[in-house]
Amino acid sequence: MDDELNGVKVVLHTVVDPNQELAEQVAGKYGFLHTATDIQTVLDDPEIDAVSMALPNRMYVDVVPKVVAAGKHIFCEKPLGLDAAEAEIIVKAAEEAGVVNAVGFSFRRIPALAALHELVADGTLGDIEWFRGYYYADYGASLEEPRSWRYIQKQSGGGAVADIGAHTLDTVRYVVGDIAEVTSAQLTTVITERPMPAGGIGHSIKASATERGPVDNDDIANLSVKTASGAVGNVTLSRIACGVPNDLGIEVHGTKGYAEFSSANMDQLVVYESGEAKPGFDGARTIVAGPDFPYFGTTAAQKSSAEGHPVEIA
Amino acid sequence: MDDELNGVKVVLHTVVDPNQELAEQVAGKYGFLHTATDIQTVLDDPEIDAVSMALPNRMYVDVVPKVVAAGKHIFCEKPLGLDAAEAEIIVKAAEEAGVVNAVGFSFRRIPALAALHELVADGTLGDIEWFRGYYYADYGASLEEPRSWRYIQKQSGGGAVADIGAHTLDTVRYVVGDIAEVTSAQLTTVITERPMPAGGIGHSIKASATERGPVDNDDIANLSVKTASGAVGNVTLSRIACGVPNDLGIEVHGTKGYAEFSSANMDQLVVYESGEAKPGFDGARTIVAGPDFPYFGTTAAQKSSAEGHPVEIA
Amino acid sequence: MDDELNGVKVVLHTVVDPNQELAEQVAGKYGFLHTATDIQTVLDDPEIDAVSMALPNRMYVDVVPKVVAAGKHIFCEKPLGLDAAEAEIIVKAAEEAGVVNAVGFSFRRIPALAALHELVADGTLGDIEWFRGYYYADYGASLEEPRSWRYIQKQSGGGAVADIGAHTLDTVRYVVGDIAEVTSAQLTTVITERPMPAGGIGHSIKASATERGPVDNDDIANLSVKTASGAVGNVTLSRIACGVPNDLGIEVHGTKGYAEFSSANMDQLVVYESGEAKPGFDGARTIVAGPDFPYFGTTAAQKSSAEGHPVEIA
Amino acid sequence: MDDELNGVKVVLHTVVDPNQELAEQVAGKYGFLHTATDIQTVLDDPEIDAVSMALPNRMYVDVVPKVVAAGKHIFCEKPLGLDAAEAEIIVKAAEEAGVVNAVGFSFRRIPALAALHELVADGTLGDIEWFRGYYYADYGASLEEPRSWRYIQKQSGGGAVADIGAHTLDTVRYVVGDIAEVTSAQLTTVITERPMPAGGIGHSIKASATERGPVDNDDIANLSVKTASGAVGNVTLSRIACGVPNDLGIEVHGTKGYAEFSSANMDQLVVYESGEAKPGFDGARTIVAGPDFPYFGTTAAQKSSAEGHPVEIA
Repeated sequence: MDDELNGVKVVLHTVVDPNQELAEQVAGKYGFLHTATDIQTVLDDPEIDAVSMALPNRMYVDVVPKVVAAGKHIFCEKPLGLDAAEAEIIVKAAEEAGVVNAVGFSFRRIPALAALHELVADGTLGDIEWFRGYYYADYGASLEEPRSWRYIQKQSGGGAVADIGAHTLDTVRYVVGDIAEVTSAQLTTVITERPMPAGGIGHSIKASATERGPVDNDDIANLSVKTASGAVGNVTLSRIACGVPNDLGIEVHGTKGYAEFSSANMDQLVVYESGEAKPGFDGARTIVAGPDFPYFGTTAAQKSSAEGHPVEIA
Repeated sequence: MDDELNGVKVVLHTVVDPNQELAEQVAGKYGFLHTATDIQTVLDDPEIDAVSMALPNRMYVDVVPKVVAAGKHIFCEKPLGLDAAEAEIIVKAAEEAGVVNAVGFSFRRIPALAALHELVADGTLGDIEWFRGYYYADYGASLEEPRSWRYIQKQSGGGAVADIGAHTLDTVRYVVGDIAEVTSAQLTTVITERPMPAGGIGHSIKASATERGPVDNDDIANLSVKTASGAVGNVTLSRIACGVPNDLGIEVHGTKGYAEFSSANMDQLVVYESGEAKPGFDGARTIVAGPDFPYFGTTAAQKSSAEGHPVEIA
Repeated sequence: MDDELNGVKVVLHTVVDPNQELAEQVAGKYGFLHTATDIQTVLDDPEIDAVSMALPNRMYVDVVPKVVAAGKHIFCEKPLGLDAAEAEIIVKAAEEAGVVNAVGFSFRRIPALAALHELVADGTLGDIEWFRGYYYADYGASLEEPRSWRYIQKQSGGGAVADIGAHTLDTVRYVVGDIAEVTSAQLTTVITERPMPAGGIGHSIKASATERGPVDNDDIANLSVKTASGAVGNVTLSRIACGVPNDLGIEVHGTKGYAEFSSANMDQLVVYESGEAKPGFDGARTIVAGPDFPYFGTTAAQKSSAEGHPVEIA
Repeated sequence: MDDELNGVKVVLHTVVDPNQELAEQVAGKYGFLHTATDIQTVLDDPEIDAVSMALPNRMYVDVVPKVVAAGKHIFCEKPLGLDAAEAEIIVKAAEEAGVVNAVGFSFRRIPALAALHELVADGTLGDIEWFRGYYYADYGASLEEPRSWRYIQKQSGGGAVADIGAHTLDTVRYVVGDIAEVTSAQLTTVITERPMPAGGIGHSIKASATERGPVDNDDIANLSVKTASGAVGNVTLSRIACGVPNDLGIEVHGTKGYAEFSSANMDQLVVYESGEAKPGFDGARTIVAGPDFPYFGTTAAQKSSAEGHPVEIA
């Protein structure tokens, strides 16, 4: 836990889900005190200070303004609505309400990725000239994966580019800086129809054996971008990457070196810095994440237990 | 948390340390209710069911029998005393007291290592013929690392072989099975004297600038062993492995394949199974740890948050 | 050597270079019988059947038609002229002359890359949906690298895209198939001026300490392309990749698996095929190049000598 | 080719094999001028200066003294006889004859291994404290591999330890230095009988379907050794390593760093040198073999052709 949260006692108060049974399951598993089937219960409860929301993309723009208007701080999963316009509505509402507005860009807390952010920020790699960000996932690789809302543009605001692209573009911004220009975007729908859903929710949804419906958003997105700092880059997003269940990665190439991060190997960071070794004997270092990486300390208890002997507490 | 612990409420009750200030620091950080400077306070308290002990090796044989005699379940860090004889005293005492006696062989809960255990147990790799276990650490690599009790045989019961070897030998037992024979043991003290300690404790100990004392246990241990199942193997332990802060690993070679695990890359497991591909196109697979690995589910919340979208709860 | 060349006796006849001394050095080193400072000597010599040419890009269109008109078979280094129009002139001239016209796309003879070509061709990876080709080189990474003809568009026909891109685009064609469309091309000159050359040739050229001239072609090229088969892909080319001396690579993702090749690690090929292992235990295989890979046999003597015992000749 | 051989013209003169047909095949394939079925033909021929011999282990002690007595320089495949006593006979005979006596320790010419030799020799890694040498091969992994002379102690002088161990022990000597002591040797015969041979030779030998015979030498050898310089190490040799066709490797750990080489990945060398990066950001470098590695230049033509542009000749 971050030091600034020392002494803060967090009470897991209420789980809200229209499915009462599911709400109770979750509450039981994680130790929430109450459940509700309507968000209004939460809005009316003065004991509740903050609300964490994991909603289908299209619902944020309706729900969030009500939550912030009730004075609750918010933490939303990405993406924040169907498009930039919806996100702006939410951001403004939160600003006007004077509440904290956070989005769950969880990758920023991976120690090796945060270390990479630092290496760029402190100039170790020089000016970044070229980068590549990618997110390969396989949740849509099977032809029999049902056509949930994620595969319908009107409900999702985008396919791979919105779903996993949100994390990847945030990672680019985190490491290289703001994106100034999308030079080109090649969006491809490879699997053009899928079985209709037949009960179940989210990623556990079941498929109809007989009915199929059209898919109208991208399975693969291939973007050429340019950052405000002048770096050019490629961003590749695929939700049909057979054999890669879940891998977000970034490589950056600068005037003094390069580095590579992959979440499928998140305990390691590959870094090349020029001028380290005698000619012909230099090469990229494989750094194992450790206590000098940001955020590593917050999992120190877990890690130190694996070290075979107690770790002293400073 | 394991399913069998659902509904069990754990209260962090008392931190015991002769250093009152340190006890209070730890209690504050982790939320313990009380502190004490003597173990007797814990033994006398009927509210306390179980005691977790992280002691210098030589102290277990004195302390643990008192704790179990008071009817407390125990969880001790390894190694359980200075030698096998002391460990047996402790085991017998716990048996007589009828309490749970657990030792912190924490590596067994790493999903990829537990998956390797399964691959051997279910015969995927055939009969194991050869294995190599190792633990490379660098906590003693510096000539200026002070001569704490770890470097004194009478207080430690062994150097690398006792300290990090305990984990490694346990890993061999976990994956390949009981060790029937130590064919040879090459124990080497490379750094034969170290600065005397000058305040501070454990791995945060400070070094005297002027006084040095002798080291009389092993920096590197090189064992040839044989398991009850007939496999032969090497076990290498080094506490002076410059450049390898902390890496426990095992590779096993069987009649049908081989596998490799390294804790420095603990999200991955390398496995070769014969007969998978056309001739000349087979090779070891790099498996990324995921929800089908044992114990992975207990960290599911954390992992799923990194997946870019909610994970359904079964 | 390929089997179809068994019994063919190759005589290294004449080295042609305007620099007589250099021609003699090369002839001595490789065992050529003669030298010449003008190509006409070769054209007039009926003993010479074939000519191998390594020329600056702009010279092919002038020289090659004369060579083929003299009835010589040709082998040219890439790229075949400054642009597609020049290449077509050469191709037509060779066709009319009825001679063999080969270009030195040397990567096609790397066993692991040829094996990847096979895996795609035989359908092992299914239909290719996405690919990435890249060539990272550092020959232009230093600000002090002189402005040779490679950095002048009129003489080179392109920067990274022509020089190392020729190999990369050929590799894409070799593995995935013909490119039908270049959707976008982001060409960037990062180092916009370089020292003027001051003697020496080719990559051994020296730099002027005082004079600098402009660079007007691409240091980095970032292409979005589409193949005739419908696969989309990114092609990245950099001649200023600090820390990567020379690495051509390709990864392909298909409906049944994926594969990765990198020339910096050319003895290995990474391949994922779906459906190989029990759920959660599959992963990409690292295949070590061996005798079942194409062209491996042509270096068998060398490889087998490293195997510790003689290899039988079939 | 090494520079000292510039100007030396090597004539491939005579292939000797008791099997005339095989001798002719080999001669044809590699361009030898003559064949013979008896070594005496070679000994009597004054045109022949040097003889390269690839013989079953037990034959060297008989054949080589005759060859050197005839004044021929020799190059023998390893191991040089059945044991140290036989090797000494051969060495003395060559010394007395005043001829060059070379053994085919071919791994010493792999650029990355030669580079590792240099890193130890020049002190980059400090004093070597620990090392591990290994050779995993699978030529004996199948139960149906016939019982050739390699599996019979009297004809081989040793199993894995003699066959592939010769290369591995030489590699240890090359990198770490002479071995002063074999502390322990665990020799294991896992596959205790094999089908009798049924025609064919060497590694192409065929197996009898009905008859089997005993194996009396080691499939796996596990050695603990100590070098003259004081380093301790393990040497592991297996000829039944299912899934590892051919991999010789060595890792060395010194007071200033460590390094790892594997012939299955021979284009790369992994090296850690202490003190390169800021705390927590150091790690082992992966060095790609290049022109600064020893012996790399002798294959420069081949390598440079893969670089996409001509390489200047110095």
